[in-house]
Amino acid sequence: MSTAAQSLNLTTPTDREIRTERIFNAPRERVWKALTDPKLVAQWWGRGNKLEVVKFEFERGGHWRFVEHGPEGSHGFEGRYREIKPQERVVQTFEWDGMPGHVIVETMTLEDLGDGRTKLVNVSLFHTNQERDGMLNSGMEGGMNESYAALDKLLARLG
Amino acid sequence: MSTAAQSLNLTTPTDREIRTERIFNAPRERVWKALTDPKLVAQWWGRGNKLEVVKFEFERGGHWRFVEHGPEGSHGFEGRYREIKPQERVVQTFEWDGMPGHVIVETMTLEDLGDGRTKLVNVSLFHTNQERDGMLNSGMEGGMNESYAALDKLLARLG
Repeated sequence: MSTAAQSLNLTTPTDREIRTERIFNAPRERVWKALTDPKLVAQWWGRGNKLEVVKFEFERGGHWRFVEHGPEGSHGFEGRYREIKPQERVVQTFEWDGMPGHVIVETMTLEDLGDGRTKLVNVSLFHTNQERDGMLNSGMEGGMNESYAALDKLLARLG
Repeated sequence: MSTAAQSLNLTTPTDREIRTERIFNAPRERVWKALTDPKLVAQWWGRGNKLEVVKFEFERGGHWRFVEHGPEGSHGFEGRYREIKPQERVVQTFEWDGMPGHVIVETMTLEDLGDGRTKLVNVSLFHTNQERDGMLNSGMEGGMNESYAALDKLLARLG
């Protein structure tokens, strides 16, 4: 089993979507826990910045809201859970306070690779191509790499 | 100036949009007030049913939430304001509790027809064609006609 950092594979399947794929060196149950326990989410989602979990109603129809406190200021993010299939799949919306009313649908899938590793696939669907491109140009990929590096460390600590 | 009830003109400009157009026999300022004062909204939005205005933060980034109490049960609706241009334009999101995480972007425009009448244009943008068709098949047109008939009456009372 490799312990080297895995790389993020980002593609654009359609003109309104972004798909990312990332392998984690941890079994699916542990990855699921890190993604769905608010105390653990607070340890990686904010890329090392302090993350305030304001709301985490983890059920269909429930709302979530995080505020990330970074050196350059605070940013609020929120959304609502559309679908939850334990260990396998979460569909939720995502909205940044800086662009209110611009709502992304995120479909997150966890795949057990059978060798103690887990593949996390995230597909983001935007209302328009412009919103999709705005996200691509926002430094999203670097931000995800930072978050996932923090998640790598958390998963190792939990092991 | 006609006082006859006006008809709703519904079209589908693209496969993810619904556009409606409706004329009201009232000046734009009065229509704007009926659309943006929560006490007035409660008198027409719910099609004659009791409407509870839970949240009405009418500013960019603010949230709104209504609960309609009808004979067949209660339905919650909510969203967030993306853009407000007084007297002219509101862009907001719309989500029904029954389908959480399915978010519509609504762009509402008021046009002063110059003869004491006002044209209200509403364009709804969906993430997918299936969601758009689901809305078309939900009885939306009948519901809008009921709401707008209640709005006609309210505007006449305010005159």
